[in-house]
Amino acid sequence: MEEVILKKIFLGLSVILTGILLAACGSVDNLSNDTNSSGSSKGKTQLTGQTNTGYYQGVIKNGRYQTSKSRGVSVQQESNQFNIKGFENGLLNISKKQFSTKKYVFQEGQYLSTKRVEAWLGRKSKSNPTGLNPVKSKSTSATKRNPIYLSQIDEQDYMTRSGKSLSLQGMTIGLAINSVDYYKKTQYGPTYQTDLTNSQINSEGKKIANQVLSRLRNNKKLKNIPIVIALYKQASDDSLVGGNFFAYSTNNSGTTSVNKWNKINQKNYVFPLQSNQKGPSQNDADSFDNFKSQVQTFFPNLSGVTAQAQYTNGSLTGMNVNITTQFYSQTEIISFTQYIQSAAQRYLPANAPIDITVQSTEGIQSFLTRKANEKKFSAHIFNSY
Amino acid sequence: MEEVILKKIFLGLSVILTGILLAACGSVDNLSNDTNSSGSSKGKTQLTGQTNTGYYQGVIKNGRYQTSKSRGVSVQQESNQFNIKGFENGLLNISKKQFSTKKYVFQEGQYLSTKRVEAWLGRKSKSNPTGLNPVKSKSTSATKRNPIYLSQIDEQDYMTRSGKSLSLQGMTIGLAINSVDYYKKTQYGPTYQTDLTNSQINSEGKKIANQVLSRLRNNKKLKNIPIVIALYKQASDDSLVGGNFFAYSTNNSGTTSVNKWNKINQKNYVFPLQSNQKGPSQNDADSFDNFKSQVQTFFPNLSGVTAQAQYTNGSLTGMNVNITTQFYSQTEIISFTQYIQSAAQRYLPANAPIDITVQSTEGIQSFLTRKANEKKFSAHIFNSY
Repeated sequence: MEEVILKKIFLGLSVILTGILLAACGSVDNLSNDTNSSGSSKGKTQLTGQTNTGYYQGVIKNGRYQTSKSRGVSVQQESNQFNIKGFENGLLNISKKQFSTKKYVFQEGQYLSTKRVEAWLGRKSKSNPTGLNPVKSKSTSATKRNPIYLSQIDEQDYMTRSGKSLSLQGMTIGLAINSVDYYKKTQYGPTYQTDLTNSQINSEGKKIANQVLSRLRNNKKLKNIPIVIALYKQASDDSLVGGNFFAYSTNNSGTTSVNKWNKINQKNYVFPLQSNQKGPSQNDADSFDNFKSQVQTFFPNLSGVTAQAQYTNGSLTGMNVNITTQFYSQTEIISFTQYIQSAAQRYLPANAPIDITVQSTEGIQSFLTRKANEKKFSAHIFNSY
Repeated sequence: MEEVILKKIFLGLSVILTGILLAACGSVDNLSNDTNSSGSSKGKTQLTGQTNTGYYQGVIKNGRYQTSKSRGVSVQQESNQFNIKGFENGLLNISKKQFSTKKYVFQEGQYLSTKRVEAWLGRKSKSNPTGLNPVKSKSTSATKRNPIYLSQIDEQDYMTRSGKSLSLQGMTIGLAINSVDYYKKTQYGPTYQTDLTNSQINSEGKKIANQVLSRLRNNKKLKNIPIVIALYKQASDDSLVGGNFFAYSTNNSGTTSVNKWNKINQKNYVFPLQSNQKGPSQNDADSFDNFKSQVQTFFPNLSGVTAQAQYTNGSLTGMNVNITTQFYSQTEIISFTQYIQSAAQRYLPANAPIDITVQSTEGIQSFLTRKANEKKFSAHIFNSY
């Protein structure tokens, strides 16, 4: 237990230190060199390799991964992990519409530094003229104050290869907008919250997007590439699932304001639904409940069964099921996993991709997965020698 | 952090409670009924289904998994998890030689109850006449005292189906023998240890096996089935890998003492090897070291890379690689996983099955696997909505 605590403290410290170091090291507004050298040992560029065409290859320089120039900012600032993972995964999926994984290589954002992103995420003020959030208002009333709208910025660079060199051919920017802004009236006082309406999130997000786009175009390396901007509505801090993207735009070479927004109709749910909550499909909710009741009484001790479900245009487009129980032997894990496999095939909704992880207090024990439009789940049981 | 502590306390309590309940509920020396009824709702028997022919199907009765009659004894008594998982996994592999997974169904041990197993694992004494460990000696000297030899007993039942009923057709018994016996001279005093030699482990294990076999034959349901007995040498408590099986015997119907022992030449190692340690293959150790150095400097922050490796008759027969690092985004996880895939194919030893898990302080992030004699690793990256 002490080890766990020490690890957490160490993690916390290292996140803070990384932030400080990155900020201190500067290169802040110096845009980095293009990754087009590969002959000299100093600028040697490699790619990560590709597991399958669902993923982009990434860029390695001098044997090290080319990390983001604003590495760690989100991890430091967001308290809900699901808002980080969901934001980044969703942004990749939007990028794939514009930049094919077969043709483009992914590079972690090299044009927005930690210092710049931190400034942009701040409130506008005399000392922070580039802040994209509104000036601090005198009122501290939840409904009258100016809330913080912009909460995360993610930059993704898309490169193409010609021979041994890579050149920037496109960029995707994700902007995450709060649905709830948590704030304190006094430094150590209680936390209050301002709830934002969907229309506020939509209009403020789009305003910020225009500012970001015109700022990026000021950089001559970003003037003549397509820049995709996508807007994400963050979930509240207590949510067990992340927020959702609601709009994106593809901005052709040279454009400095967004011409046209495309709507994204996507929403996430946690199963089992709360009794007062209505999901998009009663069928799916019933299927999950049947699966859950089959699984949770398998052992004399109860198993916990929950899921994250994502709906796009009203249809289930993905599900992560999480099962937690206490095992007393490896053979129990094997039998349970095999049973889940048949129960999942029988009860869980068809067609959508589904991952199922089986955990105990010791960590993951097995997992099952079914890709979109496959019929069978495949299972993997973790072992030990 | 508090949650983790509470969970651990809760787990501890539930293990203890389960033990008490199982012991209290009795059915101690009553052997349970055969699982041959299936018509009535009371005795309805199902099977778990089978993920692939590498695993046995398990037995479900009345919608619940048929748990072991001595469920939880090992979890309660063993302090090194690797000795439990390795023991149970290894025992399954030995069973598969005798009882094919295509023909036989696995049932958790129904003939040895918690109370009986606890008595057998104890020292022989007036109040515990069936104890399989030697009487307590007066001496408390590490080299003069009678150590505890027998540390775990695992019973596996093998059934065949005829129509809708199952009947017992074989049994496997695993006996785990200490290589180190930890003891205290006074209740709250320091822990001392008695180290056992291989020849002690071998001869005492075989003596105990004969006693167990003859006791099992006293039960008329176990008189005329083949009983496989396998002997396991436990690793020390601080080992990062479990112990190893060193002998097994197949005892035909009716036999009350072991006729013939088959040697098992299997050993587990932790990679990287310690500087004073010699592994069975310098090639494999070098391969792992190359892989490790490729992987650990991928990020600016260092990654930890270790492995469990199992050797059978001097050849690598399995490896579990564990990589731990701190990630700052989902795209880092994707790039790292793809890089590991190509590095693993390039550097890690061919032919043997290999699992690679990638973890952060948040838990598992991705994993890669290659089955025996496959060339390519397949990868799975865990996501979140």
